[in-house]
Amino acid sequence: IWLYGVHAVRAALANPRRRCLRLLTTAEAGERLAQAMPDGEKSQKSQKSQKSETSTPAIETVARERIERLLAVGAVHQGVALLAEPLPQPAIQEFLAHGRQPGGTTGGGTGGDTGESGRRMVVVVLDQVTDPQNTGAVLRSAAAFGAAALITTRRHAPPESGALAKAASGALEHVPYLQVGNLARALDALKAAGFWTLGLSGAATQGLAEADPGGPLVLVLGAEGVGLRRLTAEACDVMARLPTQGPIDTLNVSNAAAVALYELLGRREA
Amino acid sequence: IWLYGVHAVRAALANPRRRCLRLLTTAEAGERLAQAMPDGEKSQKSQKSQKSETSTPAIETVARERIERLLAVGAVHQGVALLAEPLPQPAIQEFLAHGRQPGGTTGGGTGGDTGESGRRMVVVVLDQVTDPQNTGAVLRSAAAFGAAALITTRRHAPPESGALAKAASGALEHVPYLQVGNLARALDALKAAGFWTLGLSGAATQGLAEADPGGPLVLVLGAEGVGLRRLTAEACDVMARLPTQGPIDTLNVSNAAAVALYELLGRREA
Repeated sequence: IWLYGVHAVRAALANPRRRCLRLLTTAEAGERLAQAMPDGEKSQKSQKSQKSETSTPAIETVARERIERLLAVGAVHQGVALLAEPLPQPAIQEFLAHGRQPGGTTGGGTGGDTGESGRRMVVVVLDQVTDPQNTGAVLRSAAAFGAAALITTRRHAPPESGALAKAASGALEHVPYLQVGNLARALDALKAAGFWTLGLSGAATQGLAEADPGGPLVLVLGAEGVGLRRLTAEACDVMARLPTQGPIDTLNVSNAAAVALYELLGRREA
Repeated sequence: IWLYGVHAVRAALANPRRRCLRLLTTAEAGERLAQAMPDGEKSQKSQKSQKSETSTPAIETVARERIERLLAVGAVHQGVALLAEPLPQPAIQEFLAHGRQPGGTTGGGTGGDTGESGRRMVVVVLDQVTDPQNTGAVLRSAAAFGAAALITTRRHAPPESGALAKAASGALEHVPYLQVGNLARALDALKAAGFWTLGLSGAATQGLAEADPGGPLVLVLGAEGVGLRRLTAEACDVMARLPTQGPIDTLNVSNAAAVALYELLGRREA
């Protein structure tokens, strides 16, 4: 897949788990990228860094049009494109056994209420949110507030792509992105592992803050206009709403996720 | 301007202050729009509603390609396009004197801590956020949490457009959208009218909840990566940060605005 945008590409290059194949930049963007890189990568032809296993491909300086031809129309590439393999994402059982810590590296399975960082475990589930921009923005908020993973369905959800990674602004390298065949079964597995499941719905009567049962939590959001599917809603232990009002009473799904993660994770740490 | 998308067009048609000139829909979308309309508009050729001054143009049923040609490439129009005049937006002095209530209709000037709805007055300011999608999403959150207005600069900010209105999902019809020539002067006017000004910045030391001085508040956000300009930051009484953490510690600007409005307006009402 072609990744693009300064933040997304920089984070991919810095991720030892990401296999990077080719790096194309405009002359101008190459400088900006080099400045932004923590180490190495200062010269036109970069040497492989000796002290990490990251395979950093040499920068190929190209014309802007060359990059444009590789990507979808309208992609905001900022003069940077990276050909990379998709990340190896854990299966749900593997995630539950090992991969709970933010960053997605396989630490020792700790179990219990919190990940290795001592923070509360919150997993975000998106039920058939198809837009990569929204899904990417949710990944970004998940990283910013320290959620443990994002789970979507394999169908009716965006695959790992340049648009998703751009909207995630680097977060795709840090938050496990699990795509499952059967969402209701995944929710069952999470419940069996000790998670509460909380669905966000404008039709719920309880506010999020009062409905929050505490402890390890799965936050479930549906697509705009459609909401949660019946089987997904039935798999939720509790439904809650955000305290919106007025003629426009729903938020964009990525904004709703950000607000909910702030309530569940951000406020507590403040 | 051409507005598009079912929510944005429906809200514009329902807004008595919006002058609507032509309404183009595909056959399929015309039905969906008619079902969604609160009244009237059921027939192919709609009669002017007698009981309101809203000038609803007759639906012209057209081919999808016809709508596509009118709009920017990639516009998610859902088969609906409305030619309308931009809304008359109040100047800042006019807003401070009259227009404080959500909905932007000129009610009597009340002054004091709250608008006519009894809610806390919060005005959102975006400092040179150029993306219409982000700006529209902020308008939507402003409507959902009951903020009184969105203020941007006249330059380096999106004008009223179809893309802005689509992302706002109807909120453009409800939240005054003020564009000012000089942002520092607008902040001074708001301060003179009794507002505190609070800037969001990742570099701030205080969290938003503790930094909030209470009372009428102006929430100021800058563009991603750039943040607030010096003069804008200097015009802020207090700076605050959102409690983010980890390798990705900033949010998309519309997500940051949603979280802040939830903290300032949503939580209190819950």
